[in-house]
Amino acid sequence: MKTRFEPQDAEFESRVRKNFAEQRVMRLIDASLTVVEPGLVKIEIPTREDLTQQDGFMHAGIVTTILDSACGYAAYTLMPAGSSVLSVEFKVNLLAPAVGGLVTAHAEVKRFGSTLTVCTADAFADGKICAAMLATMICLKRDNP
Amino acid sequence: MKTRFEPQDAEFESRVRKNFAEQRVMRLIDASLTVVEPGLVKIEIPTREDLTQQDGFMHAGIVTTILDSACGYAAYTLMPAGSSVLSVEFKVNLLAPAVGGLVTAHAEVKRFGSTLTVCTADAFADGKICAAMLATMICLKRDNP
Amino acid sequence: MKTRFEPQDAEFESRVRKNFAEQRVMRLIDASLTVVEPGLVKIEIPTREDLTQQDGFMHAGIVTTILDSACGYAAYTLMPAGSSVLSVEFKVNLLAPAVGGLVTAHAEVKRFGSTLTVCTADAFADGKICAAMLATMICLKRDNP
Amino acid sequence: MKTRFEPQDAEFESRVRKNFAEQRVMRLIDASLTVVEPGLVKIEIPTREDLTQQDGFMHAGIVTTILDSACGYAAYTLMPAGSSVLSVEFKVNLLAPAVGGLVTAHAEVKRFGSTLTVCTADAFADGKICAAMLATMICLKRDNP
Repeated sequence: MKTRFEPQDAEFESRVRKNFAEQRVMRLIDASLTVVEPGLVKIEIPTREDLTQQDGFMHAGIVTTILDSACGYAAYTLMPAGSSVLSVEFKVNLLAPAVGGLVTAHAEVKRFGSTLTVCTADAFADGKICAAMLATMICLKRDNP
Repeated sequence: MKTRFEPQDAEFESRVRKNFAEQRVMRLIDASLTVVEPGLVKIEIPTREDLTQQDGFMHAGIVTTILDSACGYAAYTLMPAGSSVLSVEFKVNLLAPAVGGLVTAHAEVKRFGSTLTVCTADAFADGKICAAMLATMICLKRDNP
Repeated sequence: MKTRFEPQDAEFESRVRKNFAEQRVMRLIDASLTVVEPGLVKIEIPTREDLTQQDGFMHAGIVTTILDSACGYAAYTLMPAGSSVLSVEFKVNLLAPAVGGLVTAHAEVKRFGSTLTVCTADAFADGKICAAMLATMICLKRDNP
Repeated sequence: MKTRFEPQDAEFESRVRKNFAEQRVMRLIDASLTVVEPGLVKIEIPTREDLTQQDGFMHAGIVTTILDSACGYAAYTLMPAGSSVLSVEFKVNLLAPAVGGLVTAHAEVKRFGSTLTVCTADAFADGKICAAMLATMICLKRDNP
């Protein structure tokens, strides 16, 4: 896979994977980080009955959880070593019920900035689009990376 | 508590509480439906380590999960018997880290419509505001309530 | 240009162009409807000093004006004859200052529905992306088309 | 009027009014800055036929123009002297047609931060709510104020 972004930090993938492993909620929902490329990240979770809303669809908040993390990590691939990333805000449209085997979030950086980065992401349930996100992420520089 | 809305369905509270009990994900995250008034709903969850992101804060997606359900149920209190509610879209701003004992979502109907209803919600962690949502909900009429 | 959508109304283009001509504000800002394809619309405006904010950039609200109309018409190309379209809501990220000769909004339908349609749009100033929109449009059926 | 915010710059009102006077688009649409308090700003415009969309309502982009400026200035009242303000992003829900004599935008700071400030705003047409915004503003520090 080829993206149009050049990472500042050659170790971006291990840095993202280490950070993902620290998101305890990802374990709770059995999420996997499947793709980590410069400016592009994919996360997937199995549908599980204990993640559903009243109609048996995956709850919009759980779909949002992987969309948000995917956007955050897509931005984080391009941030410098020693930085950290936080979500400023996001908007999600629910396009179809999230039902079926796997729910996958595909996030890409739309515009990278040294402070704010804007990402888009789509979620797919069983290969069919079920949600879309437009999100803003912020890069925080740590004093002692 | 007094709100400015008149419910169409006198049984709105039991209808909302029954629906909430069917949201399996609410049990996973130990959520409680604490207030159900016409056009106004509150949901709370305890902070738990298995709901956190990399910095130990509650993941934005989990905060969104209770904000979204609170908005959906605030709208649902005003919908007729036999209807169902789905999220069309929402936007969330993360205002502060969600850390501390309880995270609470307070949702209110901003404008009720027979098809679309717009809600706002704030989330508080340990009493301090940590997130804000602006959301659109849709009312689906069932043929056989 | 080829899109993946089949219009329900063969006269979609003239219907959209007639509606655009009725948007009085489009004349005020010298907007042109340059592309009308099924599920895809482009609108452009010249930069003008009387459309600027304090730094001499085109005001975000004016960029939003053409993004919103472009999204509305992208949705409207797919709606049936005799319907009308209204904006439910939209979110806009400002990615760069809108400066330069022409500002262009490119909108596409992301998911078409008989009631709600979700669109995305990008705005470009002098060919460089300056804003992104994610929007929800509603189709209203007229009794007497 | 009393707000809960303490401005850092005693000259905030004159600074905001001077900046508003530099927004050329505000003159085009006959906008007036009616209230400037710490963290709270109101802007109004008359309805005019040349600001309308196809149904004769004020175009959502024009309503957004005053909502966005009102949010930006609400944030700007709390920023230090020598700073400038830009919109990062906003989301708008259209709640009712904007028709009638005056359209007014009432914006308030929801959370002030040294870099990012989150605001909410409502628009009213003839005193009736017609739109709601949730917006993020950024403070840029100038080297030579």
